[in-house]
Amino acid sequence: MVYSRRIELKTAGFCDVNDITEELRRIVAESGVTSGIACVANPGSTAGITTLEFEPGAIADLQDALERLAPAKGRYKHDATWGDGNGFAHLRSALVRTSLAVPVHDRALVLGTWQQVVFLDFDNRPRKRKLQVVVVGE
Amino acid sequence: MVYSRRIELKTAGFCDVNDITEELRRIVAESGVTSGIACVANPGSTAGITTLEFEPGAIADLQDALERLAPAKGRYKHDATWGDGNGFAHLRSALVRTSLAVPVHDRALVLGTWQQVVFLDFDNRPRKRKLQVVVVGE
Amino acid sequence: MVYSRRIELKTAGFCDVNDITEELRRIVAESGVTSGIACVANPGSTAGITTLEFEPGAIADLQDALERLAPAKGRYKHDATWGDGNGFAHLRSALVRTSLAVPVHDRALVLGTWQQVVFLDFDNRPRKRKLQVVVVGE
Repeated sequence: MVYSRRIELKTAGFCDVNDITEELRRIVAESGVTSGIACVANPGSTAGITTLEFEPGAIADLQDALERLAPAKGRYKHDATWGDGNGFAHLRSALVRTSLAVPVHDRALVLGTWQQVVFLDFDNRPRKRKLQVVVVGE
Repeated sequence: MVYSRRIELKTAGFCDVNDITEELRRIVAESGVTSGIACVANPGSTAGITTLEFEPGAIADLQDALERLAPAKGRYKHDATWGDGNGFAHLRSALVRTSLAVPVHDRALVLGTWQQVVFLDFDNRPRKRKLQVVVVGE
Repeated sequence: MVYSRRIELKTAGFCDVNDITEELRRIVAESGVTSGIACVANPGSTAGITTLEFEPGAIADLQDALERLAPAKGRYKHDATWGDGNGFAHLRSALVRTSLAVPVHDRALVLGTWQQVVFLDFDNRPRKRKLQVVVVGE
């Protein structure tokens, strides 16, 4: 059994953190899959997907860490190539990754109570994003 | 074909590194799947799963690197929210990730001889953990 | 439906970045899978797989960041164990990860136009690598 759906969202960019857990849960519920794997991805190289307790403190801590790893005001060779000034966003995206696979068990995503799936838009401007979700299982 | 099993383990916390490869191998063998994908996850936002050569030197190097990325004695905004003092654990978990997908080929996980799947408990106390494994394939 | 194929490549080591997107695309096309999940992995603990815009600037930025995270000339406890001098490669591999899952939709990998799947060889010598790809879906 395979079920495929999109999640569309408007982001603010600049490392904003968006909780996409409820949409993922709804898609898994609709899929009818009891046991399997859900995979979500953003097509693009300036964003990332991971999991986090979605509360302001943990969000800010992750943003601070990414700023240390790949400072927004740093110098990037990508910017020399394209001049679009978002080299830091490309670097963050490669480090955080743009897709996530999560097991589905008992018709639900295997996540903790205080754990959300988050979409991070690293780009240096607001963006419209279309994420693809595929659920495979039985 | 979908096969689902739990791995239960007691951890020491404080970035202890646990080798879960043998349990994963056993589950893949039991599943009868010849070719497919295995996905393992910890529900929770203070642990991580990745791969590593499970020997004391490489383990210590990874622990040292995570201590640089997210120092245990650092200041975290998450701690201001909840006061549970494990902000560093949340940050490490978001960076390392809490789930891992590995191909299954010829009835076996695609891993190197010197490569193990490791579960890292970043929390600031011992924990009991229940990981979920799902194997999808034929 | 499950389809499994290898990608073989010769690398230069020392954090060279190899674009494996075309081979992955070909394998997904051959698989006949319309909708599903593709998972690619390198068996071994001194390499990594992620996504990146494959252009010289972004490649150099990622290499620079990995050099900051795990310097090639740093001191590693792994090297004390084995004396093979590639402790930095093991650390980079554990942080970047050795497998990647990407959704397949409309018979294609869900990737952006400027996004490639890259294989990074962190080892301190040229290597021959055999990556395993499994596509699961319908």
